[in-house]
Amino acid sequence: MQYHAQIYVTLRPSVLDPAGTAVESGLGQLGYAGISGVRIGKYIELNLEANDEADAKGKVDKMCDQLLTNPVIENYRFDLTPVAVTA
Amino acid sequence: MQYHAQIYVTLRPSVLDPAGTAVESGLGQLGYAGISGVRIGKYIELNLEANDEADAKGKVDKMCDQLLTNPVIENYRFDLTPVAVTA
Repeated sequence: MQYHAQIYVTLRPSVLDPAGTAVESGLGQLGYAGISGVRIGKYIELNLEANDEADAKGKVDKMCDQLLTNPVIENYRFDLTPVAVTA
Repeated sequence: MQYHAQIYVTLRPSVLDPAGTAVESGLGQLGYAGISGVRIGKYIELNLEANDEADAKGKVDKMCDQLLTNPVIENYRFDLTPVAVTA
């Protein structure tokens, strides 16, 4: 069974986000008012083979811990969608 | 009215994603089989002031075109959630 995973990686709230701060001040300079709390993270899409949804969940969790995210400074969450395989 | 925007920025499908390819081969070397189509994008969160949802939508669209994304090589989509203001 093929699954499509959409993984959202965000910096932990306690970690400073200089890129977010830069974007926030950039938006201010472009004339946008009332913008706050800009945080920049990563968005990863991938397809994986798994036996069922629980198996896919476990695999994505392991991938995130091992390679895709830095668990010291980042949080992640993800959505899984079964991919229809055309016969 | 305060809105929370979650913006997903992805490379257009026709644009090569070397970082995604590197992650895909990295996952392969870690022993994960059946992984394909790894694409890496950006995930941006921000809060903004707007009169209503249509106004917020227009503002986020303009910000994305002007600063947050590169429309030549990237697509984006976003979700808006009204933020409850505590009295």
